[in-house]
Amino acid sequence: MKRIGILTSGGDASGMNAAVRAIARSAMNAGLEAYGINYGYKGLVEGNIFKMESSQLDGIINRGGTILYSARFPEFAEEEVQLKGIEQLNKFGIDALVVIGGDGSYHGALKLTKHGFNSIGVPGTIDNDIPGTDFTIGFDTAVNVATEALDRINDTATSHQRVFVVEVMGRGAGDIALWSGIAAGADAIVVPERDYDVKAIADKLLKNRENGKDHGLIVLAEGVTSAAKFKEELDKHGDFDSRAITLGHIQRGGVPTAKDRVLASRFGDYAVRLLLEGKGGLAIGIRDNKLVATDIIDTLENHKHMTDVSLLDLNERLSF
Amino acid sequence: MKRIGILTSGGDASGMNAAVRAIARSAMNAGLEAYGINYGYKGLVEGNIFKMESSQLDGIINRGGTILYSARFPEFAEEEVQLKGIEQLNKFGIDALVVIGGDGSYHGALKLTKHGFNSIGVPGTIDNDIPGTDFTIGFDTAVNVATEALDRINDTATSHQRVFVVEVMGRGAGDIALWSGIAAGADAIVVPERDYDVKAIADKLLKNRENGKDHGLIVLAEGVTSAAKFKEELDKHGDFDSRAITLGHIQRGGVPTAKDRVLASRFGDYAVRLLLEGKGGLAIGIRDNKLVATDIIDTLENHKHMTDVSLLDLNERLSF
Amino acid sequence: MKRIGILTSGGDASGMNAAVRAIARSAMNAGLEAYGINYGYKGLVEGNIFKMESSQLDGIINRGGTILYSARFPEFAEEEVQLKGIEQLNKFGIDALVVIGGDGSYHGALKLTKHGFNSIGVPGTIDNDIPGTDFTIGFDTAVNVATEALDRINDTATSHQRVFVVEVMGRGAGDIALWSGIAAGADAIVVPERDYDVKAIADKLLKNRENGKDHGLIVLAEGVTSAAKFKEELDKHGDFDSRAITLGHIQRGGVPTAKDRVLASRFGDYAVRLLLEGKGGLAIGIRDNKLVATDIIDTLENHKHMTDVSLLDLNERLSF
Amino acid sequence: MKRIGILTSGGDASGMNAAVRAIARSAMNAGLEAYGINYGYKGLVEGNIFKMESSQLDGIINRGGTILYSARFPEFAEEEVQLKGIEQLNKFGIDALVVIGGDGSYHGALKLTKHGFNSIGVPGTIDNDIPGTDFTIGFDTAVNVATEALDRINDTATSHQRVFVVEVMGRGAGDIALWSGIAAGADAIVVPERDYDVKAIADKLLKNRENGKDHGLIVLAEGVTSAAKFKEELDKHGDFDSRAITLGHIQRGGVPTAKDRVLASRFGDYAVRLLLEGKGGLAIGIRDNKLVATDIIDTLENHKHMTDVSLLDLNERLSF
Repeated sequence: MKRIGILTSGGDASGMNAAVRAIARSAMNAGLEAYGINYGYKGLVEGNIFKMESSQLDGIINRGGTILYSARFPEFAEEEVQLKGIEQLNKFGIDALVVIGGDGSYHGALKLTKHGFNSIGVPGTIDNDIPGTDFTIGFDTAVNVATEALDRINDTATSHQRVFVVEVMGRGAGDIALWSGIAAGADAIVVPERDYDVKAIADKLLKNRENGKDHGLIVLAEGVTSAAKFKEELDKHGDFDSRAITLGHIQRGGVPTAKDRVLASRFGDYAVRLLLEGKGGLAIGIRDNKLVATDIIDTLENHKHMTDVSLLDLNERLSF
Repeated sequence: MKRIGILTSGGDASGMNAAVRAIARSAMNAGLEAYGINYGYKGLVEGNIFKMESSQLDGIINRGGTILYSARFPEFAEEEVQLKGIEQLNKFGIDALVVIGGDGSYHGALKLTKHGFNSIGVPGTIDNDIPGTDFTIGFDTAVNVATEALDRINDTATSHQRVFVVEVMGRGAGDIALWSGIAAGADAIVVPERDYDVKAIADKLLKNRENGKDHGLIVLAEGVTSAAKFKEELDKHGDFDSRAITLGHIQRGGVPTAKDRVLASRFGDYAVRLLLEGKGGLAIGIRDNKLVATDIIDTLENHKHMTDVSLLDLNERLSF
Repeated sequence: MKRIGILTSGGDASGMNAAVRAIARSAMNAGLEAYGINYGYKGLVEGNIFKMESSQLDGIINRGGTILYSARFPEFAEEEVQLKGIEQLNKFGIDALVVIGGDGSYHGALKLTKHGFNSIGVPGTIDNDIPGTDFTIGFDTAVNVATEALDRINDTATSHQRVFVVEVMGRGAGDIALWSGIAAGADAIVVPERDYDVKAIADKLLKNRENGKDHGLIVLAEGVTSAAKFKEELDKHGDFDSRAITLGHIQRGGVPTAKDRVLASRFGDYAVRLLLEGKGGLAIGIRDNKLVATDIIDTLENHKHMTDVSLLDLNERLSF
Repeated sequence: MKRIGILTSGGDASGMNAAVRAIARSAMNAGLEAYGINYGYKGLVEGNIFKMESSQLDGIINRGGTILYSARFPEFAEEEVQLKGIEQLNKFGIDALVVIGGDGSYHGALKLTKHGFNSIGVPGTIDNDIPGTDFTIGFDTAVNVATEALDRINDTATSHQRVFVVEVMGRGAGDIALWSGIAAGADAIVVPERDYDVKAIADKLLKNRENGKDHGLIVLAEGVTSAAKFKEELDKHGDFDSRAITLGHIQRGGVPTAKDRVLASRFGDYAVRLLLEGKGGLAIGIRDNKLVATDIIDTLENHKHMTDVSLLDLNERLSF
């Protein structure tokens, strides 16, 4: 093992740069060389690959986005293209690849592993929807950004006696909605993992009003429906002064939280140490507060991310 | 002069609470009593009025929204309703009213003044669109919130080589767009105060791409058109990987900046000192960095807010 | 079980209010009454106790400090005083007490439990130094505040080629130093859990300088020595343009992070559910990402908080 | 005019990078070349000078510190050394120099101007203590950082019934103390521009306590005395549970506020436009909300920064 390649892929998540730094520095510290691959799998196939220097990693730990860029590249689903990628890796003398990204990115790593090229996946996505880990890089930052936005919206809701329906990101998963909803003291949280009853939510808001609380906050995961449609449904069940908001892309970027930086640092270093032990074909994660590495093929083919829906019940007990 | 009434009206703006505190404390400090009026003109007409204690003002200077609440109340356009409001003020022995709010709120104060009730307007709106003042309470906070959001979006734009069209608030005025656009280093800023040329903007982005800058940021004032429509126009002039975003209500609330708190404190105190000098029927403002008070009737009927469009030219010189 | 008492004690930690809210709301949701006790054990003994209403809990989830106040009260070490406290609890008909606080606060709960009064401890301290839990309420916020401060200091260190020695809080534990140090990419982290070698640190900084990195950041836990003394030692081993900084109280307060709010919500609700199951005399915690409750007497008398010193080795591999 | 040199000098201030960008971009936009000079006057004399490219300026507008670095260089007080600096400027074909910095930096520019080299000063310092301008780059950011810290400290003061004496930066000027003190609702603000009466402050705190407000906040400018000494004096006049805090270097760095970015952009662009008009030997500023340029020799030799001490009286009226 002499050279490790690093790429980021899929939607950017805050903390990806901390992971890039950790992988490269941990590799250099062990006497290996680190090669950066720009623009994800696209750059891999095109040979957009360069030797990283330690000084390039100085000052990036707190930067949002990814210094290695990302790019859409559906062509990587084709075997022929995958083999071209391996050709490039061989050409640059790269012995193993660490991929930071979400679900789609993992599938690329899975394909390379199946072709015999040693690849490791590091979970980086704001959605927290990767199997094999309790938390992904970028999730904590996204939750904090969403929570801060909900705090602001609460100020207006309170001042104007309004009900806000706020759609947060998460693709098919309700994790961002659940965590930010609890953190903001939402009256209701709506996630794809459980059916919702719009009439029950409306009744709760009406009952709150009777009890003197004349404003409301509903946090909606994008995987369920749109804020605009949910508001329409809600308005059928009460005379609310309601507004629909989509938080959108502000949840992706920005300065990563301390937790995301530490998690990314631990993930990246762990990936390198596993490679140094001769291991590979793995998905990195944190489970029950411990670093774990599971077979990337088994993890992706046989497991699913499990959202902790008990948080929904918790919120029901706390918010009224 | 014994009792001063205070109300907030129109859209909430961060710093309104700092103004409420300043008016009430400055009044108390001069031996007057301060009366809070809940829910704006609605609460005024309904007599939702209470004597404020100093302790209620402790800890509110850094709170978003308004502790006096706000409410829509189009009925206040009718003379009969206005007179009912004056009746309530008389009933509570209130000698003068300070109204914190935007354009619409000022018109209420104007009407009361015309009916002979001493009223003073303190400019509180994120839009910065009030005549008679260079800056309004809440504008600086809104600009900073928008700028932080644009910073985040820039991270994603850079990572993914995308062009983002971001719509910010401001009603008919381009001030938030101009300030946040310059602060975020936007490639183009589009405001209602000047015609825009979508082809020229597209050409600039294409030229940037030739020069190696493959991402872009366009800040659009809501008074021009929607982000979605602008994106559609833009896409006709280039093969951009573009996205449309509406920042929305997050710009309204949240912890006010130091500048908004100081401005609100100065405005509120100044209003009380003018009342103590026997003056009234005034619009408070800051002009050329000095506190000013102008006749509220003349200000509203004969003047308009002037957005500093020279900032557009500045941005053209700095962003490429 | 009809009435639950709640008190906060010891140094304030962000998220305490979220825990107060969770305990009170979860109790109310189960048909119980919640009683707030002001000023910690002092207020308990003095009978400064009041019935909480749900509306008092609205809008506190994102507020720093504690709405129940805290107070020093060394007198509570005396048995006689403890029994007076129990007298007050009986007088108000309170069946069980939930105490939010750090080490000292837990010992009060332990004493009450030994006297037969059902008490539950919820870990709330920025120091993360409570046995029986991996994380305490307030730790994540303190780490983020410290990290943001270190980011700022890094800007100046880089601009001026300086070495900063920054002392962070943590009492006898190095957790805040470790987490914020890794998050800020510190060149060295010094904690009480491991001996340090100031010459080795100086040599690393000198070697960095040779490699072109002419600035440095050392994060020092307050439990080791003062920043001023450490700087003095450091300066003996190199010609650094060094500065000593003590971050101080800014680490205690402020808006809690989403993680602290969610953790506090889970802890508080869990305490109530255990009481409803007839349990008591417990210390609440999160271990391996799962809520746990351990015997409060055994936990405090036989266990110690274990700082994860492997993070020190991680930082060595990543920072150069 | 073909080439403009840019250097930053003195203590770093947030927004300096925005000014560097504005000067360089505005110059490039006018067909000039921009040359960066690293490490202030030291780099000038040593010829650490490089041609700037537009791409280097991308993404720096929101970065704290200065990408051109700063350095102490007392040797520049000597005429011989100044002439060496001019030699270097001539060697690189630089026609005019724009210096961003505080008082000391301005004196360097003054000297170069007296030797006949066209130099312009752009005010960049957190202290706001430059003659010829109402506001300097970095002041608004420092005030906001200090205010946020004071907000946090207020949480702890309230929770623990404590009095905090918080020392903020500002060198000889009280501007940061005044603005952050008003913004945080301080009970007293102590600045070098006006004598203070520690007994009167203590009496106010004691009276507040009688009125039910049992905590306090005193904001102290570093130009007066140290927090520790002030606390000692204060404690002689009352039984306060008081704490002394020095905020320190966190006030210097960090992401600049929108206001500082816009101000820096305007200043930098204005400096270039003046040079293009054939002007020079000037100090840039903003006065009464308008960009101004005054003779740098006259400004420095005959004028002083005037702190607005009327803000002290304002605070007295509002805080009790």
